[in-house]
Amino acid sequence: MGEFDLIGRYFRRDSPSDPAVVLGPGDDCALLAPDPGHTLAVSSDMLLEHRHFLPDIDPAALGYKALAVNLSDLAAMGAAPLAFTLALALPAARAGDAAWLQAFSDGLLTLARNHRCPLVGGDTTAGPLALSITVLGQVPQGQALHRAGAQAGDDIWISGTLGDARLALGALRGEWPLPPPLMVIARARLERPTPRLALGQALRGVASSAIDVSDGLVGDLQHILQESGVGARIQVASLAQAAAVCAQPLAATHLKPQQLLAAVLAGGDDYELLFTAPPNRRPAVQQAAKTSQTPVLRIGCITAAPALQLIQADGGALDAQRFAGYDHFA
Amino acid sequence: MGEFDLIGRYFRRDSPSDPAVVLGPGDDCALLAPDPGHTLAVSSDMLLEHRHFLPDIDPAALGYKALAVNLSDLAAMGAAPLAFTLALALPAARAGDAAWLQAFSDGLLTLARNHRCPLVGGDTTAGPLALSITVLGQVPQGQALHRAGAQAGDDIWISGTLGDARLALGALRGEWPLPPPLMVIARARLERPTPRLALGQALRGVASSAIDVSDGLVGDLQHILQESGVGARIQVASLAQAAAVCAQPLAATHLKPQQLLAAVLAGGDDYELLFTAPPNRRPAVQQAAKTSQTPVLRIGCITAAPALQLIQADGGALDAQRFAGYDHFA
Repeated sequence: MGEFDLIGRYFRRDSPSDPAVVLGPGDDCALLAPDPGHTLAVSSDMLLEHRHFLPDIDPAALGYKALAVNLSDLAAMGAAPLAFTLALALPAARAGDAAWLQAFSDGLLTLARNHRCPLVGGDTTAGPLALSITVLGQVPQGQALHRAGAQAGDDIWISGTLGDARLALGALRGEWPLPPPLMVIARARLERPTPRLALGQALRGVASSAIDVSDGLVGDLQHILQESGVGARIQVASLAQAAAVCAQPLAATHLKPQQLLAAVLAGGDDYELLFTAPPNRRPAVQQAAKTSQTPVLRIGCITAAPALQLIQADGGALDAQRFAGYDHFA
Repeated sequence: MGEFDLIGRYFRRDSPSDPAVVLGPGDDCALLAPDPGHTLAVSSDMLLEHRHFLPDIDPAALGYKALAVNLSDLAAMGAAPLAFTLALALPAARAGDAAWLQAFSDGLLTLARNHRCPLVGGDTTAGPLALSITVLGQVPQGQALHRAGAQAGDDIWISGTLGDARLALGALRGEWPLPPPLMVIARARLERPTPRLALGQALRGVASSAIDVSDGLVGDLQHILQESGVGARIQVASLAQAAAVCAQPLAATHLKPQQLLAAVLAGGDDYELLFTAPPNRRPAVQQAAKTSQTPVLRIGCITAAPALQLIQADGGALDAQRFAGYDHFA
């Protein structure tokens, strides 16, 4: 099958016509019409086999996650999706594997359809399996959520649960055992993270800053602190139960408290929203959580002094550097 | 050097502030403000080491060309550049090679500055050398040049020269010799193609269809014919001298006429604009060429019958299939 057949068969499907798409795939460029009065949001990611996923990955999960992590970047800006492009390098064996391509494109395009974010263009080439997605979204002018808006005294909030993706990864790597009932929960969070788009949009005008947790809570919080020129105090006790698997009776018998804490503080791949808001906006935050049907948890506060303090139940502090983020070249 | 240092040192430079860039690199998304009344144009490409370039490539040329081919897609739509994102996978050896990174980013960012197309975001990861660029541009609403607009009776035009990039590639591969004076000319065309942005914008309202020649004249013309539901008659004699090296006295003694013809008809990587326009718009085409300081050549006409005829000086026809385009999975 040639390049153009492959694109036509798997990646161009009839989809509800989207008024923002003036011209879809097949020309030199796609053409899009953002709504008047909106600012365009753009984010690009690259995923490589062996580095970001293993060859035996479920192709549907790969397709899903490749787009989900980009949609999560839009969510962190308070943006609504417009469209995305996909640059895809495929080894010859994959290009000829109809079942793999069908599952990959199903995982990708189902999520895209659910969020009205059509595939409008891209590139296909032979090579070691690699994907690069660029997602485009829009946000009403002046309402985007930046990393640089946190103020001393603001509350710090996190959506959903943290640490499950890392617990699944550790189990897959043999770092610890997870019995099947826990693994099902954790693995779904690793492979099918939920981009918090509805929450991000509901937080426009409410949150003072936001980021999505891709590298880990401590590492990503430090981006907010650096960009905002502030510090933070996190109540570790409020986080000890933040992973979804913790709610299961089995968890306490299979995981050490320190493993769980490290997964919650430093585990990446959660794609939850970490955001700040003034204390007088607590009702507005709760309303945004309700509107978007997304649980949120208050975990600490922003301080004027530019340091990150992780405060334990006994008042002692953990060393934040132990939980710092992931650096691809460190 | 860590990921964030690498991005900061080589890829974030002071550049003239651009009113379209609301927020540059460093947040979850970049934010852009296209001009009111404009449609957004988007294109993505992926370049892989070994597949699209060799490890010993001049890094400045690689940086230049990676962006140039994307700008060429904007040119083919009649769009003006807004900004671009770069997803970059780098082997550890490259990430630690300051001279390589400096040259690569110089080649990339100098072209970007010359076309007022700032780097606004992207991704950096460790892995086999791979680049994916997504370029964003804008075109006044309703004025984009599509592939699907060619009409029977339209003239067919090509900008600049064709075939030089293929002649350089053949010489590098040892398919034929090119003496140094010819190689200098040909190699510049291979490594530093000129995106025809000014011409593309000047052809708004004049050209009935357009595409950029990346895979070869015959292959790319067939995209216009298919999308427009028409055929074409090309005067091969008008093309025989289309390569820039042909103008050199040395050319005739070093290249066979058939090699030259194949390079002109089927050689890729020229990034010239191939476009159509009604015969009564010939003065407007010439004016667009003059305004944009880009030479253009009329090479044939669009026919109602959906076939591509390559007509020789003696009236005989060449087999167009011999010169069909490049398919990455064929």
